[in-house]
Amino acid sequence: MTQTQDQARNLTMMMDEYELTMANAYFNDPTIDNNTLVSFDVFYRANPDGGGFAIFAGLQQVKDYILNMHFTDEDIKYLRSVGHFTDDFLEYLWSFKFTGSVDAFKEGTVMYPNEPIITVTAPIIEAQLVETEILAQVNHQSLIATKASRIVRAANGRGVSDFGARRAHNNDAAIYGARAAYIGGVGGTATVSAGQYFNIPIGGTMAHSYVMYFTSEDNNNSTSELAAFRSFAKSYPNNCILLVDTYNVLKSGVPNAIKVFNEMREAGIQSKSFGIRIDSGDLAYLTKKARKMLDDAGFPDAKIIVSNSLDEYTITSILQQGGQVNSFGVGERLITAKSEPVFGAVYKLCAVQNPKTGEVIPKIKISETVEKITNPGLKDVYRIKDANGRAVADLLAIKGEKVDMNQEGGYKFIDPEQPWKSTHIFSGCTAELLQHPLIRDGEAVCPDEDILDIKNRVKDQLETCVWQEEQRFENPHKHYLDMTPAYYNMKMELLREKDK
Amino acid sequence: MTQTQDQARNLTMMMDEYELTMANAYFNDPTIDNNTLVSFDVFYRANPDGGGFAIFAGLQQVKDYILNMHFTDEDIKYLRSVGHFTDDFLEYLWSFKFTGSVDAFKEGTVMYPNEPIITVTAPIIEAQLVETEILAQVNHQSLIATKASRIVRAANGRGVSDFGARRAHNNDAAIYGARAAYIGGVGGTATVSAGQYFNIPIGGTMAHSYVMYFTSEDNNNSTSELAAFRSFAKSYPNNCILLVDTYNVLKSGVPNAIKVFNEMREAGIQSKSFGIRIDSGDLAYLTKKARKMLDDAGFPDAKIIVSNSLDEYTITSILQQGGQVNSFGVGERLITAKSEPVFGAVYKLCAVQNPKTGEVIPKIKISETVEKITNPGLKDVYRIKDANGRAVADLLAIKGEKVDMNQEGGYKFIDPEQPWKSTHIFSGCTAELLQHPLIRDGEAVCPDEDILDIKNRVKDQLETCVWQEEQRFENPHKHYLDMTPAYYNMKMELLREKDK
Repeated sequence: MTQTQDQARNLTMMMDEYELTMANAYFNDPTIDNNTLVSFDVFYRANPDGGGFAIFAGLQQVKDYILNMHFTDEDIKYLRSVGHFTDDFLEYLWSFKFTGSVDAFKEGTVMYPNEPIITVTAPIIEAQLVETEILAQVNHQSLIATKASRIVRAANGRGVSDFGARRAHNNDAAIYGARAAYIGGVGGTATVSAGQYFNIPIGGTMAHSYVMYFTSEDNNNSTSELAAFRSFAKSYPNNCILLVDTYNVLKSGVPNAIKVFNEMREAGIQSKSFGIRIDSGDLAYLTKKARKMLDDAGFPDAKIIVSNSLDEYTITSILQQGGQVNSFGVGERLITAKSEPVFGAVYKLCAVQNPKTGEVIPKIKISETVEKITNPGLKDVYRIKDANGRAVADLLAIKGEKVDMNQEGGYKFIDPEQPWKSTHIFSGCTAELLQHPLIRDGEAVCPDEDILDIKNRVKDQLETCVWQEEQRFENPHKHYLDMTPAYYNMKMELLREKDK
Repeated sequence: MTQTQDQARNLTMMMDEYELTMANAYFNDPTIDNNTLVSFDVFYRANPDGGGFAIFAGLQQVKDYILNMHFTDEDIKYLRSVGHFTDDFLEYLWSFKFTGSVDAFKEGTVMYPNEPIITVTAPIIEAQLVETEILAQVNHQSLIATKASRIVRAANGRGVSDFGARRAHNNDAAIYGARAAYIGGVGGTATVSAGQYFNIPIGGTMAHSYVMYFTSEDNNNSTSELAAFRSFAKSYPNNCILLVDTYNVLKSGVPNAIKVFNEMREAGIQSKSFGIRIDSGDLAYLTKKARKMLDDAGFPDAKIIVSNSLDEYTITSILQQGGQVNSFGVGERLITAKSEPVFGAVYKLCAVQNPKTGEVIPKIKISETVEKITNPGLKDVYRIKDANGRAVADLLAIKGEKVDMNQEGGYKFIDPEQPWKSTHIFSGCTAELLQHPLIRDGEAVCPDEDILDIKNRVKDQLETCVWQEEQRFENPHKHYLDMTPAYYNMKMELLREKDK
């Protein structure tokens, strides 16, 4: 994996200024012990597009950022010029290093609202300074991975490629977006840097400009198009996808493509991969017509690739109409997650350690909106699976609390939305801890993951673990986030106390 | 301007693979003269959010990219591993340098659909390879600058700051998004890197975590909040914006802020800037109540800053309800342009030079959708202003065509939407060329612009040149894109020829 160009960037200052103003205030308040350990949870509140779940992505870049954090002389000079910070604090920043711990879901894990995906435990200033980049990476990559997963599910086994770079929100959105889309399920990307950095298969054929560049002597569009196709086929006999909609798909593009495929066949070329791409017009109608023309001409193996403002909804519609498509090139609506371009993960204080006693004080953010009340304290998150390996719920427990699924009569838990019911029991289930140590005392404690392992994790979960009822687009089943009785009681006690 | 960290990145490979597959095919086709000059226009087809115009941004990064383009040994090695390119072509890439020319609108120019914002003229391979990054920069930054301009207009003179980094589509979207937002009119950003790279004022105060971190001995929320406010005020007597919605805005937050402001006053501190921020709840209601409480307590100078999912629509609504706001912090809906997150600029071949005769052959992309037919050939774009300096239309002319606004009886032009009318005349108008040379023979021919000059260009145009009728959000006036008779006739002749 070649990431050197990218890793050479120092992204330390990619943070909201308030991280630094708070840090400076903590640093300069003599009543505050800056070694106090605090814990922040990363979680989100709602699945994008009304879906049943989301895909966690971006953890590798979170890890890289935290491990590489350092303020250069140039950074300190700039911060001094801003005039908001004391010299002592700037001196502290100059030697800043993250010394805390991070626990997180494995990248590519299916995740649900209100559970801690990442937990950072560190001295207050350190824990605060990592906030912005953690959220930016997790929000962006999880957004795109989740969208990609939806689009790939809509394509129902057909190929999907990311074509989005030109409409992405700048370079990183194209490059990390391609990474996230690949994790979420697309087969490849058009973005060369993303292929280079992350070992993602890249692909690309031709634009309309290629066809328009050729001018035949009779100045006829169709003759010019044929010349363009012939030239392209010479360079790419084994990856000969011809763009057929520059002039007229059915009258010019497809007939010219068939001519070239015939010429290749006559020349004895057995192309590994050939076909057409349609980038405009009524894709359901045109692909059906084109399929028949290609089949009738003896090219049932010719692929039909379509593109042009596709997403899970348009793909579903094209397939419902019987559109004949082998592969979808998906651009702007994937790379911007156009239908809902914001993933709302937040970073909330959940515990503060008393520096004298070592006691961990759980913190809760109350709100008049009940859904916005946070889950306090240090906690374990379990995924509860039935005997068939299907995830029936996630479960929050107090950190270190013993959760024994094998106890006689099954494990009793509380559904916080129906806490009065005492009959909730997991029987014959297993409980899998979702968070794993990522960083301890500022050092990585697990190797970087291969992107294919992350991608396969997504695929495996959707095949074996996540109910179809959660995977559908319309009114998906809402995954349960249950609590152990001990965790639930702790939360209720805190709420009662705050309500005094 | 410190851009060194960012300029150190080699972004050359931030391109769709088809740019390279087309280039490889051109390179290896012996019938093609690779020195043939071609021209591509960058234009877009519709203003975001149904607006009356857009703001052109991203040109500085386009220029940086083109001037710095080079393929490293590592890049070539990667491309070789992909297996789609000949050794000769890779050898050519290794010594690649852009040798062509670029003309463009000045950054910050108000722009309209279907006019060439940027024109690239270069040998075909070079012109093709720059496509993706030009579009990614122009699309992203113009999107955000345009959105920022709308939000700033809605705020109607009140402050607007960018708070979006955590919801941006990764680092570059936060950093270049802050740049574009500043150009579009916001007063500053929270994103530290953006301040550092582009000399944008940065600001930031505190998060809910700051308030939650403090625990009073009686474990009472309001007492803890007061302790947090006091601590913060000690560090920032002159920039003391207190976040008042952690527990209860009107019962706890505002009263505690007033206590601290009174203590500061009693201590003889004359704060330059102090006030409150509200980040949740009914902002219209809460700001009115808070304003009265602050005024009654003798703090009419205390600022009220609000944030939480703001955009031009919510800001308009808050102000219509009489909300008392000094400044808006705008996050996710600005930095993702949530209501319409795709800016659709395209890069279309408009001319090919005959290498033997030097004759320039105009190219037109036809389409069954009339609006998608391109404007062919090399052209000049003029902004026509009346005697008061208001822009009454833009005008397309054949490149180099004499356009004399002072001719007797006024200048006659054609409205392509009503070409049958012969009475279109500009009288007492001036015509300003909108494209300016940016790059000639691969070298910059104008200095980099100061970001403040770009920002002021936007401001000046909105104040003096763009009609209010185009600036409103609902059904804005549609700007005319007219043509000289010669340009119109050339386009019609091409269309008739293609229709043969």
